Amino acid sequence: MNIFVACELGGSEKIIIQNKLKEHNLFFSNQVFNKIADKNFLKCEIVFGNIPSNWVVQSSKIKWIQLESTGFAEYTDVKTNFLKNDVIITNLKSFFARQVAQTTLAGILSIYRGTDLFALLKKEKKWVGDPFRNKLEILNDKKVLFFGKGSINKEVSKYLKPFDCKCSFIDSHSKKEYVLNKLKLAEIIICALPGTKSTKMLFNKKMLDTLSKHSIIVNVGRGDLIDENYLIEKLNNKTLRGAVLDVTSEEPLQKNSKLWNCTNLILTQHTGGGYTNEIKDKVNIFLDNIKRYSNKTSLLNVINPSKGY
Amino acid sequence: MNIFVACELGGSEKIIIQNKLKEHNLFFSNQVFNKIADKNFLKCEIVFGNIPSNWVVQSSKIKWIQLESTGFAEYTDVKTNFLKNDVIITNLKSFFARQVAQTTLAGILSIYRGTDLFALLKKEKKWVGDPFRNKLEILNDKKVLFFGKGSINKEVSKYLKPFDCKCSFIDSHSKKEYVLNKLKLAEIIICALPGTKSTKMLFNKKMLDTLSKHSIIVNVGRGDLIDENYLIEKLNNKTLRGAVLDVTSEEPLQKNSKLWNCTNLILTQHTGGGYTNEIKDKVNIFLDNIKRYSNKTSLLNVINPSKGY
Repeated sequence: MNIFVACELGGSEKIIIQNKLKEHNLFFSNQVFNKIADKNFLKCEIVFGNIPSNWVVQSSKIKWIQLESTGFAEYTDVKTNFLKNDVIITNLKSFFARQVAQTTLAGILSIYRGTDLFALLKKEKKWVGDPFRNKLEILNDKKVLFFGKGSINKEVSKYLKPFDCKCSFIDSHSKKEYVLNKLKLAEIIICALPGTKSTKMLFNKKMLDTLSKHSIIVNVGRGDLIDENYLIEKLNNKTLRGAVLDVTSEEPLQKNSKLWNCTNLILTQHTGGGYTNEIKDKVNIFLDNIKRYSNKTSLLNVINPSKGY
Repeated sequence: MNIFVACELGGSEKIIIQNKLKEHNLFFSNQVFNKIADKNFLKCEIVFGNIPSNWVVQSSKIKWIQLESTGFAEYTDVKTNFLKNDVIITNLKSFFARQVAQTTLAGILSIYRGTDLFALLKKEKKWVGDPFRNKLEILNDKKVLFFGKGSINKEVSKYLKPFDCKCSFIDSHSKKEYVLNKLKLAEIIICALPGTKSTKMLFNKKMLDTLSKHSIIVNVGRGDLIDENYLIEKLNNKTLRGAVLDVTSEEPLQKNSKLWNCTNLILTQHTGGGYTNEIKDKVNIFLDNIKRYSNKTSLLNVINPSKGY
């Protein structure tokens, strides 16, 4: 079979994939993703990695795409084409849960225990010490409101058990009144929602104004969930205690973004899913699925493009 | 009774203590602690807060000191005087456990998820993003070695349960060979030890050289536990992954301290025990104990100066 490897691999992962897939023809992407599809891609029935969605319709061979992400919002628009060509897409559902959940906890604890501010004080060689103490917070008994019931939020809620936090979950079935009541009382709001029409700008001015000024909000889902300019305003005028954003409306952030100067904000630069063995483990999932593909057994994590998550 | 309040209170806590102890004579410290004892102190039989240890022998009235700390190393030298005068000392045992344990977790996660470095990148308005991902780490299955079996370490080990870390504990009864074997394999070393003769410089060059270069060390006990200069050397030449120090050999740190410039080091400036309600809760413990004192029932957390912890 011809396989197009679109995702960027380290040297050792490339060797692993070459050894394990000796009997196939591998075409490694040159990491240039123009509008016109790569010639090698057009020869392939299998893709490992996230190719541009408009490439799909240019191919008459493509049968299966193994994405290297959980999200696939950019592919939902071409879903009719997918269906027409009978292309299967599999994603990395749950693969990022532990990492993202731990970045979430790291961000919350950074705000609560001041570690991000201590990093800046260290840079300035400035000792504050005692006067800092009563600005610190502990997690115990906090009211935590999760948006989304997926693997990331489940993982975070597991981590919060020893702190006896009061956890509530919001999903697409939650009634508006319930959401607003919970929002008012929440001390920590954690958003791990997929990119769909109904999540876009869910946290508009009205929603953000519902939050307590002592609360912190975390977004590890999609950058377009929150009215970013209004969030910045609220953080800068201290009507919100803090925010942790792994995702932002533009990535990478431009130098003139107001987010850089915003106070009490932690930006983790869309690295939440990363960890030392990330690529190696992604490759292993692909290798597992390709075995299933070859054996004509059902693939793991087949997505439903029309559902959007 | 005459009560000397040596600890620094906020306005609201002062009012609470004045209201609750109306029938007593309260003398608030001017926060100047010279060698010669405060005249008001000399009138008092009860002290709330950490007075200089040499004041004790100057008093003929003092009967009970409620410390506002867990540690009391500075008082062990005058223990004969304490005994002669029959002075009771109570400390805040376990009071700081949750806070310090959460600063510990915050520090470890800062290193693992990069949040301290992201704070610096934000200051520089610098996007790194993807290349950062494979430098990040997750807590799952990590080998964690605790020095000390006190309330802080017990609390941290509770927080680590959801991550399936392999936790081992070292105390004064642990055999040397066992300690060295555990040290070699440990990925996270957490020290919450009291200040005693046997803990001073416990982490000397030999001990530090036993650590894996992938490991991180946390010290939330006493600043003299670690050979600080050698630790700095190891962090700067990357033979140790990282360190979190809540306590340092000098506090506050002087501008010329090499710790400020040291890489992969998190300095939390001895704030580990702090949180919003710290002073209020300390006052409540004192008020609880004074009720016991008045009723001639046994006080909570009476220390044994000869034991040192």
